[in-house]
Parts: sequence; structure tokens; C-alpha cells
Amino acid sequence: MRAVQVIGYHTKLQLTEIPEPKITGPLDVIVRVGGAGVCRTDLHILEGQWAEKSGVRLPYTIGHENAGWVHAVGDAVTNVAVGDKVILHPLITCGLCRACRSGDDVHCEASAFPGIDTDGGYADYLRTTARSVVRIDDGLEPADVAALADAGLTAYHAAAKAARILRPGAVCVLIGAGGLGHIGIQVLKAISAATLVVVDRNQAAVELAVEIGADHGIVADGTHVEQVRALTGRHGAEAVIDFVGEGGATADGIEMLRRAGTYYVVGYGENLDVPTIDVISTEINFVGNLVGSYNDLQDLMELAARGKVALHTTKYPLEDFQQALDDLDHGRVRGRAILIP
Amino acid sequence: MRAVQVIGYHTKLQLTEIPEPKITGPLDVIVRVGGAGVCRTDLHILEGQWAEKSGVRLPYTIGHENAGWVHAVGDAVTNVAVGDKVILHPLITCGLCRACRSGDDVHCEASAFPGIDTDGGYADYLRTTARSVVRIDDGLEPADVAALADAGLTAYHAAAKAARILRPGAVCVLIGAGGLGHIGIQVLKAISAATLVVVDRNQAAVELAVEIGADHGIVADGTHVEQVRALTGRHGAEAVIDFVGEGGATADGIEMLRRAGTYYVVGYGENLDVPTIDVISTEINFVGNLVGSYNDLQDLMELAARGKVALHTTKYPLEDFQQALDDLDHGRVRGRAILIP
Amino acid sequence: MRAVQVIGYHTKLQLTEIPEPKITGPLDVIVRVGGAGVCRTDLHILEGQWAEKSGVRLPYTIGHENAGWVHAVGDAVTNVAVGDKVILHPLITCGLCRACRSGDDVHCEASAFPGIDTDGGYADYLRTTARSVVRIDDGLEPADVAALADAGLTAYHAAAKAARILRPGAVCVLIGAGGLGHIGIQVLKAISAATLVVVDRNQAAVELAVEIGADHGIVADGTHVEQVRALTGRHGAEAVIDFVGEGGATADGIEMLRRAGTYYVVGYGENLDVPTIDVISTEINFVGNLVGSYNDLQDLMELAARGKVALHTTKYPLEDFQQALDDLDHGRVRGRAILIP
Amino acid sequence: MRAVQVIGYHTKLQLTEIPEPKITGPLDVIVRVGGAGVCRTDLHILEGQWAEKSGVRLPYTIGHENAGWVHAVGDAVTNVAVGDKVILHPLITCGLCRACRSGDDVHCEASAFPGIDTDGGYADYLRTTARSVVRIDDGLEPADVAALADAGLTAYHAAAKAARILRPGAVCVLIGAGGLGHIGIQVLKAISAATLVVVDRNQAAVELAVEIGADHGIVADGTHVEQVRALTGRHGAEAVIDFVGEGGATADGIEMLRRAGTYYVVGYGENLDVPTIDVISTEINFVGNLVGSYNDLQDLMELAARGKVALHTTKYPLEDFQQALDDLDHGRVRGRAILIP
Repeated sequence: MRAVQVIGYHTKLQLTEIPEPKITGPLDVIVRVGGAGVCRTDLHILEGQWAEKSGVRLPYTIGHENAGWVHAVGDAVTNVAVGDKVILHPLITCGLCRACRSGDDVHCEASAFPGIDTDGGYADYLRTTARSVVRIDDGLEPADVAALADAGLTAYHAAAKAARILRPGAVCVLIGAGGLGHIGIQVLKAISAATLVVVDRNQAAVELAVEIGADHGIVADGTHVEQVRALTGRHGAEAVIDFVGEGGATADGIEMLRRAGTYYVVGYGENLDVPTIDVISTEINFVGNLVGSYNDLQDLMELAARGKVALHTTKYPLEDFQQALDDLDHGRVRGRAILIP
Repeated sequence: MRAVQVIGYHTKLQLTEIPEPKITGPLDVIVRVGGAGVCRTDLHILEGQWAEKSGVRLPYTIGHENAGWVHAVGDAVTNVAVGDKVILHPLITCGLCRACRSGDDVHCEASAFPGIDTDGGYADYLRTTARSVVRIDDGLEPADVAALADAGLTAYHAAAKAARILRPGAVCVLIGAGGLGHIGIQVLKAISAATLVVVDRNQAAVELAVEIGADHGIVADGTHVEQVRALTGRHGAEAVIDFVGEGGATADGIEMLRRAGTYYVVGYGENLDVPTIDVISTEINFVGNLVGSYNDLQDLMELAARGKVALHTTKYPLEDFQQALDDLDHGRVRGRAILIP
Repeated sequence: MRAVQVIGYHTKLQLTEIPEPKITGPLDVIVRVGGAGVCRTDLHILEGQWAEKSGVRLPYTIGHENAGWVHAVGDAVTNVAVGDKVILHPLITCGLCRACRSGDDVHCEASAFPGIDTDGGYADYLRTTARSVVRIDDGLEPADVAALADAGLTAYHAAAKAARILRPGAVCVLIGAGGLGHIGIQVLKAISAATLVVVDRNQAAVELAVEIGADHGIVADGTHVEQVRALTGRHGAEAVIDFVGEGGATADGIEMLRRAGTYYVVGYGENLDVPTIDVISTEINFVGNLVGSYNDLQDLMELAARGKVALHTTKYPLEDFQQALDDLDHGRVRGRAILIP
Repeated sequence: MRAVQVIGYHTKLQLTEIPEPKITGPLDVIVRVGGAGVCRTDLHILEGQWAEKSGVRLPYTIGHENAGWVHAVGDAVTNVAVGDKVILHPLITCGLCRACRSGDDVHCEASAFPGIDTDGGYADYLRTTARSVVRIDDGLEPADVAALADAGLTAYHAAAKAARILRPGAVCVLIGAGGLGHIGIQVLKAISAATLVVVDRNQAAVELAVEIGADHGIVADGTHVEQVRALTGRHGAEAVIDFVGEGGATADGIEMLRRAGTYYVVGYGENLDVPTIDVISTEINFVGNLVGSYNDLQDLMELAARGKVALHTTKYPLEDFQQALDDLDHGRVRGRAILIP
């Protein structure tokens, strides 16, 4: 089959012919790839940023946002059957550790990460396990939802956590109106009646955010903290979800927070740096957010099936992977780039 | 009546004679003081550290950890009667804002703080309201519990929050084995079956902590982070309650945390300064902690009544307030100093 | 002022002239009534069903679903000002008991209930307290929201409880598509992405329910339990909210429940009668639901202000109270009847 | 190997020689039995009460409360190794359904139940899977904890649920001071500071309950409801855990409940039969309780390892199974009967 592989760092990916993956364990699932998201992380992998962390041996197949059709299953697989449309949770998890046993499989003590530390989805076929495949609705196409597998799932996870503390009329600020921010807005519109305030440096992004459902859009022009405070009767927001995490976003975001409010860290880059006296005197909280769990992915697919969450995608044939990466690198992709084998 | 008052900053407190407080509103409660805790904050007030923040007008009566007997009540008071033994929640709250209506009265939008921004309890009598008096068990003496009103209540509040995530066998590290730490240990022993690990620089304090119930005591000698990691099978602790918040405590404490663990900030001084990449990749949380609510104080008094939480106190007659402050300032008080009018 | 009073049981209400209520306590609030809901309970009061339970002394003014404008306030009132548009929480609560201190004021140990055990809102003016008035949005009219004060608040309370366990795609069955059911549907649409299934004996009511947002409507014709089971892949629903509670509704509803599902009892009449072996072997739960808290009413008004919850009303001048009651008694009211003083 | 098998209903169990179980799947675990609890359910199985429900084919090996040592493991087993001491969760679960993925494996859509519908533990060896074995502390012996695998786990599960709503000083009534009640008391003492009130018809059982930690013991002599109400200032208890569920226990228990209180159904036999008007007017809740999850069993073993939960046992050699069953049937067993192969 065809596979796009990392053959070295600081060199281009290579389309090559390799053997199809085979079922080797009873819970194995082989998926015929229907769409593989092209992500900024893929660029970072090629720059070698993940080499040491992942410990992956080259060459290997890249691609960590995948969806497709079940092609073959091991003996013990009961949750999907050949032919099922599925999206893949990014991690392959053990199912036996306490985290897995608690529905918190992202913290599995023995997980693998296809596309990062083992063969991923820029290929005709991909091997994963029964624990990572989520059946999707007949009305959804793998290529349309593939990019929800990782970036979308992260946004869902953070938004769903925030929704738990957001009563009707509570204010939730979303910092960053990019891909994750857009998913976050759609999710919060679907599962809460909170007032959504979007803050971004880019005017067009703010306008688009308001179009898809944000109640207020604020351009980050230096007056944005003050604008949020004015909007909330000077109390601040019950929740801030920060999809940026750099360039001063956290300092601004903390100032937007109400007493006893909660800050959801999603984007990263800078340090969270706040005097402990401020943390205790206003009794604020900070919540870290990684990608969502398998259950989260099921829930997100439910929202997608009902048309409550959608993602704009630009599709490329698998063999045009280089074009897709170049377009992403140069900001020429609208929405998310998806490779179609 | 007698009252010990702040008459200026950087000058000594003065014992003086002032009129007894009177009932002026229907929810007012006059308390005959049975014990008033002497707190490090009192020293800071005299240094002027709170002058601007509190906006208090001098002279005023100091003392914010109070307990005693109800002496008089307003027309609308239904929860206590003259003669009842009571401890005073440190704040006087409005009862009408959303925070008060949610049991979260510490975030009241219009609160007063006797001893800080209005007359406190270094006196024969003190005026508060029905919303701030908690009846205590017949078996408890006001002078014995007064110091639980603020410092103890803060420790209870943080420990009770942590207990909610601590299943049997989960590990909770308590940084700081001083007054708050000791209350924290006793509370966690009473309401959880977590494994309690106490870390402090002072060997004697660590030993005492183990005596009153900590499962492990670790002297902070530079190997303490490593010791906690070894003790937890290198996973780290589900919860860290930091009663110190300075001198590098937060950096050490964060390293002791397990994936998806939670850090409770109680002590303060330094900045919480952590890379957002670490916050998200391990999905850790930070929870600010202020003093507990009125309901928390009721619960803490229940633990005190049942002998599950106790505090060592050193008692002084009210007129020896200067001695008590001097002893505190020079580290000569065992447990907490209490003034007895 | 004018007031419609109960002068005896099994006799008609009487419009009479009585003195305006005056401020007698510091937290008192006098409200000029803008709308008073006419409720089936009012008919029951006249039949004497509440005589013993309420212990009310005749004559007194009836009417327990009220909204209007603040006319006068006591000294200690800080949350509303004269002229404010307000809706009234049905209970007057003490603010001092543990329930009130926990945001659970419906279980206040010393509450009064205007219109039931003290003077209510079929009048020009009504006395309540600061603890019972919720300011409403400028865009809302008292007469339009008055009926949300009790019936609507009960539906909100139950729906908001259910929403906490309803992930996207979970199934919530609502038994009864009358007034409460309609509010329940609108609330769940606003704060969850659950799949909503409405069951009612009345085909027209089911159709209307689907129009306002229910995902599935089922006429209770004897096959309804089977239809719900088919719809849920034979698993049953995660939640059933029963607004009926009589005529076999509970037995049917329990059969619709999934393992570990939760049954919300709102309507009443028959017994909940279920073998304990069934309760434990499927591990199902039953949750009682009374009217919502003050905070719930704030949240519901937020939904109303944003157009997410609306109620059809038929308005009558206060003096036509008899017509309104007759119309209600004979099923001639569309939506809720409201008296306008 | 030796195995005690059901060879027919209404006839005696038979000790026979059968082949040792073998590893057939990658997650299989063969356990050398160290102790198998003799339970009243075993008597019911012989009476044929479970024949239809379980659908088991005879002959098969009985025994559903098992602990021992790992004897062999399949290829994919990572959580235990040969030689490990383990207790067995009563169910073998799939690990793939939503319930399993949520830590709620007791509601697995495809579980097996050794001793009930497949071969159990009255034998030298038993086959289960990696998902059902919990490693126990070195200080614990399989024979001493075996009976915690099912009965004890049920009591833990209910008590841990109740503990979540029990603040210090809240009252929890435990109806039934038998085996489950004793575990319940010990668990609640370990993880809460609630006031524990035990009610039982048997004076000696009540006394023993008080000895092991109940705060109050009440003999159910007809005045017991009144005694509980008096003890709680006529408010009733925040929680009632009913380990009996027959003979009028539920009617009594509901009367003991406080407004907004919660009733935990564990024992069964009679119907839960309560007017819906009572459910809603006091806003009470009923919570069904089945056996606990795998995670619950880990937590219970943690309490056992720390000496916080212990069970009295009477041990019999495997070949004396008939004596053990007879003793159980005639009330001659103190604590729980355990067979030792």
C-alpha cells in the first residue's frame, strides 16, 4: 500500500510502498483511511522537535488525525465490524491501568500514539485497536470529521469541562478564534446557555466567531481586558478558555476572570506566572487540558452527527501531501487540510 | 468596656475604654468575647500593610479570630439566642448577592471584616450579625476554638476541597507542618482515607505531624521531591496542599504532582510560575483557597466537638495583649496565642 | 387597593378593597403587581384542599405566581431599587438556616408562601422580601413571565438537574407535554445536547412539543414504552422526567429507563411502587423535584431574556378573575391565564 | 483438579475431579484459589432460583467470592504477574462498551459472572481475565479478604456513594447490622465524619455495630423511627442506607429521612412504595446500589490493607463445603464462611 513516511528530520516526507498492516492481536483493527488531517504538529515532527520525546524509529508513517472504514478486526473485537465508518481516537490505550479503568484513558500508563511514535494515517491503511475506534453516524464522511480526532477533541474536552460550571448567563471568554476556538464556540452553544465572548487579534476571525454563535466578539487591541470587564459589570468572567497560551494571553486572561472563576489552559507557549496572593485572594482556579477521552470523542461525534459542530476542510489526494503541507506552512489552507488516500 | 485599638501604624496597640456596641439592625448580634486569636496578620496591620487595602479609619479595635457568648440580638435573629456559645465567621456578609445565595459567602459582594476594616474582638464585646455566628457544642470553650475561626477555617476549606478527589489510598502531600498544616492533617484524617505525606523544613514539626496522624513525614532537605516521587511509585501525588507558597515551595510541589493531579494554593508569597506546556501535557490543576464559608465553619466545629480537630493554645488575659504579640513575634508561642477578656 | 380574596371554602373569590401593604421590616419589598398567574392550585385552594396544610386565616389574598415593579423597599434592601422590574420567587425564606445558607432555600426551615399561607398577588400590591425578588431584563414584561415563577421554575429545576447527567446524545424522555413539559423541553434544548423524547396521550400536544424542539414525539397509546425502547436500541433512556405522576405514568416511565438511569419525579398523584430487586439489579435512581431555588429563578430569567424559554399566556384584567378561573376550570385557556391589575 | 459443582437443582453439590482451566485468550488469567466465600446466594442457586436468569448449563463450578494467587497469564496481561496475590472482581467485563469505558463496568453490556453463569471458585483453580484481578497488599491473605469480593464490595459501593453527600455531622442511618452493615460502618468511619446510626432488630448485632464504630445503636422495636427523629432534632437523616429492603424496612427508612435526603437501596425483597406527593414535597431521592466497580474493589482493598475494614471469617477445607453450607443455612457461621482449597 501507499504510505507517506518520515525518512529523516529536516528532509521531506516520502511517498513509498509498504506492506499492508496485518491483524496481530485479538483487539487489533485495521482501518482503510478515509481522511487524514494535516496538522502543524506534522511540520514540527519534520523539524525534529518530537524526535527525542517520541523516540520513534525512522522511517515511519506520519498522520495522527484519522478516520475511515474498518477493514479487518481481531478475534476479540466486539464494538465495530468490517465496513463500519469510524474515527480514531489519537491514542492506543491499555485498558488495564487505573486511568483507563476510570474513563480517563488519556492518562493511560502505557499508550501509543499513531503518527507520532508509531505508524499513522498518511497511508491507505492503518492499524489501531478496538479501544480507539469510534463508530460515526451514517450521515458523516470520514474525510469531513478526521480533523476532529485531535484538535477538535481537545477543544471539545476543554469546553465540556467549562460547561459544567457555566449556568445560564454566566460569561465564558474564549481567547483565540482559530480552529480550536471555533470548535469550542460550537460545543458551548450546543451544551450550555452561557454568554460567549470571543477575543482574538484578528478582526476577521472575530467576525466569523460571532457569525457561528459567539454572543460578543472583541478584537485584542490593548483594550480587550477592559472591554471584557465592562461587559461583565466589572465582575469578570466565570470561565476563560485560553486557546492561545502565548504572547501575553495568560496575563490578560487572568485579569478577565471573576472571583472564584476558572481558567482553562489549552494553548501553550508562555509560562503561567501569577502571584500566589492573587490566586488565593480571589480564589481562582487553573485547569490543564489535554486531548479528550474516547468517551469525549463519542460525544463530539454525536454533536457532529446532529450538525452542531462542523469544520471547514480543504481536501487533497494523498499523493499531494507535499502541497498540503506547503499550503499549511504558508497559511494558504482555509479550515483544515485533509489528505484523501 | 475595654478594647485594644490600633491608634496608628508603626506604634503600639493601646488598651482603652470605649462604649459597648449596641444593636442597631434587626440581624445584629452582640457577642461577649470569650477568646480572641492573636495572628501574624495583627502584626502586619500594625506595620501598615493593610492600611490602604482595608481603608479602615483609626482608631479601631483589632482582632479577627473570635468566639464567645451571645450577649444581645436584633429583632430578626432566629438562629441564636442570648447565652449561646458561638464562634464568629470572620466576614459579615450581605446574604443577598449571588455568592451569598450559593453558599459561597466568602465572595460576598458587600462584606465587612471585623478586626480588619471594622471593630474586632480584642475587647469585652463585639458586634457582628446573625449571618456570622455559629453555635458551638456545649463541650467546647470559646477560648479553645477561637483560633479556628480564620486560620483553622482556611485549612479546613482547602482540605475539604481536596478530600473530594481523594479516594482511599490516593496520596495527598501537605507542604508545611505549621498551624494550618496541623489542622489540615486532622481534617483529612477525619474525612478521607488518603495517604497523608507531610513535608516541612523543620524536623520537629514533621515528627509532630506524624504523631497526630500523617502517614509519612519528610524533612525538606533538598531530597524531598525525590522522596515523594519514590513513595508514590514515581507517579506523584493526586493532591498537593501548599500551606507555604514561598521559598520555592510551589516549584517543588508541582514536581510532586501526578498526571491529572491538583495543586491547592493556600500559603502565599512567591509567584506560581509554570510553563503552560507542562500544565497541559500533564493536565494538572491549580485551585486557589481563601477562608472557608459559614457552612465550612459549622462543619469544622462539628469536627472540633467530636474531638477530631484540636489546636494547642496559649492563653493571655486581654490586658497582656502586648506580651502575646511580642511572644508571637519572637516565636515564643506554642500553638496559637489567645486573649481572654 | 384592590385584592381578590378567599373569604371561605367552596365559595367564590371576592374582589375587595383593602389597605396597601406597608414596609414593616428592613428587608421588606412592596411590589406593584404586573401579572399574577392563575394556577390549578388556586382552584384546589377554593375546594379547601390546602386549608389544613397551609393553616391560613381567612380572608386572605390569593395568587402565588407574581411579577411586577418594585414600589417600596426597606432600609436594608440592596439588591433591588424602586422601579425595578422583578419576578417573585414563590417562597419567602429566612436566609439563616443551613438550607438557605447552601443555596437550597426551598428547604428553608421557616418559610412563608404568599398566595398560599399569606397574602398573595391577585391585588394591586404585594409584600415580599429582598430575598424573593429577582430583577428581570428590560426586554421582559412582568405579565409575560409571571407564570414562570412557580410552574416554570419547577420545570426548570428538574430539567437543570437532569442536564447534569445528560451528555450529548444521551436520551431524556419527558412524560407530559403540558405547561411544565414545554418549559422542560425549552430548557433542555438550551442547556444540553441530549436527545429529547416527549410522550403524551394528546396527539396535538405531542406535535406542538416537536415543533418547539423535541427530537421525537410519541403518543401514549399503549405502545409508547415499546417505542421508547426501540428508539434507544433497547437500552432505555438515561433520564426520564415525569411531569405527570399519575394514571400509570411511573410504571411506564420506569420501564423506559436504562441501567443506571435516573427518574425525575415532578408530577404527582399515584404511588411510586417498584420492587427493590429491580431498583438494585438495574441500579436506577429516583430524584424528587420541588420548585427551584432563587438562583434557579435567576437562571430561568436569563433564558427568558435571551428568548430561549417562552410561555404562551392569555391575559385578563384583575376584575375578570372569575372568568379566568372558569376558563381554566373548563380547559378554555391557551397557555397560562394571567391577571393584570 | 478438584471442583465443587452444581449437578442439578434441589440436589446436593458434588466434589469432583475436572481438568484445570487453560489460558485461551490473551487477557486470560488463571488463579489458584486461596479462599472462596460461601454466600446465601449459593443456597438460592441450589434451589434453582437463578437457573432461568443465569441460563447456566449444568454441571458447573459454583463460588463467586474469590481470591488467590495468579497461576498463569495470557500474552496481553500487563497488570498482574504469576505469583501475585489477587482478589477477583465478581464480573468479567468487556472493556469496550460505554459503561466499561466510563469506570462503570458493573453495567457492562457483555459481562460474565463466574460462580453464577460460568465456572466459579469452589475449586483449586479458576479462570478469569486481567480486567477482573486486583492485586492485594502483601499483608493480606486471600482467604481473609475473599468475602469482600462481592458482599463487601456492595457495601463499600453504597457507603462510598453516601459519603459524597455526608459533611461532618450529617447523619447516616444504616438499616441492618449484618455482614454488609458492618462493612458499611467501617467504610463510612474511614472516609467520612458523618454521625452513624445503626438500626437492627437484633440487640447483639446493634451492640457489635457500636463497638466497631457506630455512633448510635438503635434496636428496631417499633420505636426506632421515633428514636431516629428525636436524635436528629426531628429533621431526619441526610442519608439512609438500607441493607435489609424487606419486612417494612423501606417504609420505616423513608420516615427517617430528612427533607432533600437520600435513600440508598441495597437490600431487597419488598417493594419501594411511596406516594409521589411525598417524594416531591420533601424532595427526597432514592439511589439503587449494585456491586461496586473494579476501581471500588481496589479502593476497598486499600482500606483492608490499612486495617480499616476487616471481616470475621470461619474457614473450612474445600472438601467440607457441605458442612459450610449447612452451617450457613442454620445460622451457625460467625462472620463469613470461607472454603480453602
